[in-house]
Amino acid sequence: MSNSLSKKKKVGIVGGTGYTGVELIRLLSTHFAVSLEWITSRSESGKAVAEVFPSLRGVTDLVYQDFGDDSLAMMSQVDLVFFATPHGVAMKQTPALVKAGVKVVDLGADFRLQSIADFEHWYQHTHSCPELLKTAVYGLPEVNRNKIASANVIANPGCYPTTAILGLKPIIATQNLHFTNTGEPLIDKRIIIDAKSGVSGAGRQGKLALNYAEVTDNFKAYGVDGHRHLAEIEQGVNVYLASKVEHKIRFLPHLVPMIRGMYTSIHIGLTEQGTQIDWQQKFIDCYKNEPFVDVLETGIFPETRSVRASNQLRIAVCQNNEQQELTVMVVQDNLVKGASGQAIQNMNILFGFDEEMGLGGKMKSGIPIIP
Amino acid sequence: MSNSLSKKKKVGIVGGTGYTGVELIRLLSTHFAVSLEWITSRSESGKAVAEVFPSLRGVTDLVYQDFGDDSLAMMSQVDLVFFATPHGVAMKQTPALVKAGVKVVDLGADFRLQSIADFEHWYQHTHSCPELLKTAVYGLPEVNRNKIASANVIANPGCYPTTAILGLKPIIATQNLHFTNTGEPLIDKRIIIDAKSGVSGAGRQGKLALNYAEVTDNFKAYGVDGHRHLAEIEQGVNVYLASKVEHKIRFLPHLVPMIRGMYTSIHIGLTEQGTQIDWQQKFIDCYKNEPFVDVLETGIFPETRSVRASNQLRIAVCQNNEQQELTVMVVQDNLVKGASGQAIQNMNILFGFDEEMGLGGKMKSGIPIIP
Amino acid sequence: MSNSLSKKKKVGIVGGTGYTGVELIRLLSTHFAVSLEWITSRSESGKAVAEVFPSLRGVTDLVYQDFGDDSLAMMSQVDLVFFATPHGVAMKQTPALVKAGVKVVDLGADFRLQSIADFEHWYQHTHSCPELLKTAVYGLPEVNRNKIASANVIANPGCYPTTAILGLKPIIATQNLHFTNTGEPLIDKRIIIDAKSGVSGAGRQGKLALNYAEVTDNFKAYGVDGHRHLAEIEQGVNVYLASKVEHKIRFLPHLVPMIRGMYTSIHIGLTEQGTQIDWQQKFIDCYKNEPFVDVLETGIFPETRSVRASNQLRIAVCQNNEQQELTVMVVQDNLVKGASGQAIQNMNILFGFDEEMGLGGKMKSGIPIIP
Amino acid sequence: MSNSLSKKKKVGIVGGTGYTGVELIRLLSTHFAVSLEWITSRSESGKAVAEVFPSLRGVTDLVYQDFGDDSLAMMSQVDLVFFATPHGVAMKQTPALVKAGVKVVDLGADFRLQSIADFEHWYQHTHSCPELLKTAVYGLPEVNRNKIASANVIANPGCYPTTAILGLKPIIATQNLHFTNTGEPLIDKRIIIDAKSGVSGAGRQGKLALNYAEVTDNFKAYGVDGHRHLAEIEQGVNVYLASKVEHKIRFLPHLVPMIRGMYTSIHIGLTEQGTQIDWQQKFIDCYKNEPFVDVLETGIFPETRSVRASNQLRIAVCQNNEQQELTVMVVQDNLVKGASGQAIQNMNILFGFDEEMGLGGKMKSGIPIIP
Repeated sequence: MSNSLSKKKKVGIVGGTGYTGVELIRLLSTHFAVSLEWITSRSESGKAVAEVFPSLRGVTDLVYQDFGDDSLAMMSQVDLVFFATPHGVAMKQTPALVKAGVKVVDLGADFRLQSIADFEHWYQHTHSCPELLKTAVYGLPEVNRNKIASANVIANPGCYPTTAILGLKPIIATQNLHFTNTGEPLIDKRIIIDAKSGVSGAGRQGKLALNYAEVTDNFKAYGVDGHRHLAEIEQGVNVYLASKVEHKIRFLPHLVPMIRGMYTSIHIGLTEQGTQIDWQQKFIDCYKNEPFVDVLETGIFPETRSVRASNQLRIAVCQNNEQQELTVMVVQDNLVKGASGQAIQNMNILFGFDEEMGLGGKMKSGIPIIP
Repeated sequence: MSNSLSKKKKVGIVGGTGYTGVELIRLLSTHFAVSLEWITSRSESGKAVAEVFPSLRGVTDLVYQDFGDDSLAMMSQVDLVFFATPHGVAMKQTPALVKAGVKVVDLGADFRLQSIADFEHWYQHTHSCPELLKTAVYGLPEVNRNKIASANVIANPGCYPTTAILGLKPIIATQNLHFTNTGEPLIDKRIIIDAKSGVSGAGRQGKLALNYAEVTDNFKAYGVDGHRHLAEIEQGVNVYLASKVEHKIRFLPHLVPMIRGMYTSIHIGLTEQGTQIDWQQKFIDCYKNEPFVDVLETGIFPETRSVRASNQLRIAVCQNNEQQELTVMVVQDNLVKGASGQAIQNMNILFGFDEEMGLGGKMKSGIPIIP
Repeated sequence: MSNSLSKKKKVGIVGGTGYTGVELIRLLSTHFAVSLEWITSRSESGKAVAEVFPSLRGVTDLVYQDFGDDSLAMMSQVDLVFFATPHGVAMKQTPALVKAGVKVVDLGADFRLQSIADFEHWYQHTHSCPELLKTAVYGLPEVNRNKIASANVIANPGCYPTTAILGLKPIIATQNLHFTNTGEPLIDKRIIIDAKSGVSGAGRQGKLALNYAEVTDNFKAYGVDGHRHLAEIEQGVNVYLASKVEHKIRFLPHLVPMIRGMYTSIHIGLTEQGTQIDWQQKFIDCYKNEPFVDVLETGIFPETRSVRASNQLRIAVCQNNEQQELTVMVVQDNLVKGASGQAIQNMNILFGFDEEMGLGGKMKSGIPIIP
Repeated sequence: MSNSLSKKKKVGIVGGTGYTGVELIRLLSTHFAVSLEWITSRSESGKAVAEVFPSLRGVTDLVYQDFGDDSLAMMSQVDLVFFATPHGVAMKQTPALVKAGVKVVDLGADFRLQSIADFEHWYQHTHSCPELLKTAVYGLPEVNRNKIASANVIANPGCYPTTAILGLKPIIATQNLHFTNTGEPLIDKRIIIDAKSGVSGAGRQGKLALNYAEVTDNFKAYGVDGHRHLAEIEQGVNVYLASKVEHKIRFLPHLVPMIRGMYTSIHIGLTEQGTQIDWQQKFIDCYKNEPFVDVLETGIFPETRSVRASNQLRIAVCQNNEQQELTVMVVQDNLVKGASGQAIQNMNILFGFDEEMGLGGKMKSGIPIIP
């Protein structure tokens, strides 16, 4: 055992008191090839993780650290650091870590938008390391797997963009091919992304708007005038999916009274030519080798609980040629495939591990919990 | 008191054990000008209403009746009968009631679709009184008020169509005018209606899919391949709003883990000319005299709980000219404005009462419950 | 209308942004004999009430006030002031109001405990007007109705104590009589009060422990080591019910993932003599004239939703002589009978109004909402 | 792989469409030493398990079987059969299976009560194999571990009794010792067990009382007049804990609007001598070697979500000598330690496996999911 332990990769977590932090701990605890060395928190420094999260009693003996001035020295003793922090934190510490040869996976937004202007517009925060941003890799494995493998800094995608980009990938890819050949689009310019998220997506915080009595038995849209993830979705479509047709995207997120889960309905109008395509088959072909994308059979539609606590993302397609409409429905657990699970998937790729390690597959530790 | 009592209109309810039935009782109990004479139920016949619904202890002394063969004789002693029954029931009893001079408000679907073909396609049920269907009035007061006043049979609208048609009314009306003058549309052909309902909309029944453990912490679309209310929405746009432009409507309903509430997001693409319109103002103008439609100020967006247990429907409009998009968000309580409240509103119009009687306004009995 | 308006009693609310505040507004809006003149809030001063609570759009035009230095002058223009504030606020302003002839109903805890020592122990706050405390009346109408009628200051009871004291009243009263005659008790010394509350009882605030994702799909006890309401329950049993037998009370509150509702299970051991009593009958006799206490028939047990949004409190009794056990189950809406509804009931008594006014009964405005 | 597979123990599940069935599949899928060979269901025969439970897509390829007349032949090819069926099923098939050398773990109630009279009283069902009942072992490992190891038929305990018996074990054991020495009890005769369960405990079924709209925002007791689990708890105290003092137990279960989780509050009165005991220490001593019982530190109290989806049971003790009261609070996941997890724990003991296999510990597959 000591042998195998000595070969384990060492990782640390900055900001371990949020939901993505505790989810990282839960998932890493089942990972055979990685050792979680430390976890930091300013507010809970000195407290046992299992005291803050009694669900982790018996799972971890770690105590929250505040490295203070020794930060770099301490942090650079691991192979990889996860930042489970609000935007603005990772960008400060990442340059030194990279210099020290430590890989970084940022679950925050600091390295997601390649456009500095977009970042500063949406996050109202000056970017402190634009040069590093250029080499940061957008960590959506199903789109960027090869680049992830050799990255130093990985921008873990936002939860909504993960569903939107993966829900659109087979469509844009098919259209690109068709457009190159014919100059004609397969779908309408306008794409409607009507998305719904559970409350944990808003983070672990005390806020009136998140109070149980305010959220329960209630439903509402938010970010109606504009939401940060729109820029990330547009970047996904234009840059990573490299759409040859320019699309107008309407992204409208809603808050669902549930803890975990994200449901994204994508409404697409088909052109006459678009109705000639067997879209279900395109989705199946596109994702047949992906361990974490599951395309449902025709006529089967997803529900969020079918991926609860799991890294699976499930997609269904409904094509109606008479109405010339295509509906794509995508579900994921916003804290797993939408955050911490995807971060571990990225880490697995980075370390050359089996991509499913700690996330299901052979280990089956990531089976959704139902009911 | 006997004087005023003797002047009260008499009403009865057929099928009073469902959620729309119990909601009718709750609302009628605060109505000063109406006396609820009887309520029927086959399954609960002989039981006190307050035994089945302990919330009504002290509110009503009524006992569920099964009139059996005396049905018509008993039922025709009232001025108006509400049918709170599944489709297929009202159409059987209505012809005789109308002949006997009794008004009918059907909360079911029997008289909603003017097209027999549509009805029979969507409900898989032969229509037994097509001649009566022709004179039945679609009971959406904000669209059909005058006809309601003189109707014998009122088809109380479906919950989704209520939100969809009222969310579209100012848009279609504005476009109709513009189209007549210019021949050009203001909005794209395709209209996306992405709607979400609380669980009570599925009725008071024991069904695995409605089990608490199946519904909670979960979100899903349903009726993805086609939902009955689409036909009713299309009829609303084409017939009652008399759209001069033909539209393709995609209606996608979802189930929200909440008891009451309906949220309908309508996604519309604006033409170049459509961006010239001040849509917020059009909504305000359209509904300024409506007691039960509340247009929110620009930048304020609705949530379902703001209408819980009330007959209010609230609408917000978000116009983005750069993106050429218009989003309309509509909320209502699916059991009140979406069912029983609207039925009483229709009854008030029919009897020449103040339209708000028993529903709020002066009586204020319909104030939403928050939290 | 001006005539009747001029006869209306004028009231004001201090601290109108919490759940008890908004509930007061909702209930007062249906009250025919009272006019709500103002409502204060420091944090929301200048904002329309309906802006903070969109559910009240169309119900009230009031704007939150911050009276600042003019406080007394402004506040003394009404007949009665409700304090819907945390403890420590009412005690500061009440002496001057009483001097100015204004009645006070404090929904907070300042005047609930007659023992200064108890108050200061449990609330960790010096009491600033002990002399006034002596004349303050504990506003539990079913126990103190006559004193309430002539009080200047009314201490509106805590939510848990309301259920506990009313659940025990018929028992202690019966035992007192028996004990006086025989010197023997009817029940065991130890009384277990195992109580459960919805989340709104914790108030309208942003707090991690109240975050939807923390509370949902979860159940826990709190205040296990001691809860303020124990002192109030003990005072109720010893002072207002004047128990002749000394009891040991274990009060254990739990948090239920629901918005509104309180369920109190009282476990009592019967002495041999206690089994001779028909306890169901004692409860019926005790409460037969009470408009807001409903004793359920034998074998019928309550659920919290049967009183949602209503001022009713419902009680069931389960007597098992073989096991010598008596179980009393009490439900109420913690925001209505447990807070704002009871405050209005107290106000009605104080003003000599029909006790049910604005709370149901003839007006029926307080019918529970189901589902 | 074939080698290791050939060494795996083979198991089957009878009745795999309920919540305990699907939970067995989820947990067995992570178990390295067991192979799930088949799963039966009459209603879903022929359907893939993953079709009925999309959460299990990619986890299992099994198809529901209906063995019909070949039942015994098919079923006896495995080493162990789990019955996840209502009472009355296991007792019919178990005698033949035992004869065929197959071990049986019954998650139903057929073998839980050693008293035929009690069984027939509470379950209203004649027991068809009383002789087998005598040798059946009550599968609560923390009380009966040695007998389980050599049993043929294991009665998996009810969910409530698991919490009640384990919450009482250290108390009864301590009292037994004291009583033997002194003839005096440490606690009062009466024990109050006020328990609360999530909705999944009622099973996966369509029933009005379990409809989301009926359960949500609601709380109620049930089984108030008597609940089957009382007999099982009394048997636990008298037989397995072998209490030397006779106790009167009041067991009152309640339904909590949550999916999973059970919270049992046990209220105990301490005698004068009982206050001399350090109960916290007694609990720690009692359970220090138990992998699935976690005694919380003094002053820390449990919540159900801290064991969600895990086989852990957590206990806290609150001792108040002044009031002479002891409160024990126990939480578990009703579907795991309260059902399927405990069944696998029993299987592990039976097969001589590490008791934690597939349930956490080294495999860590059973970490609770938070939020």
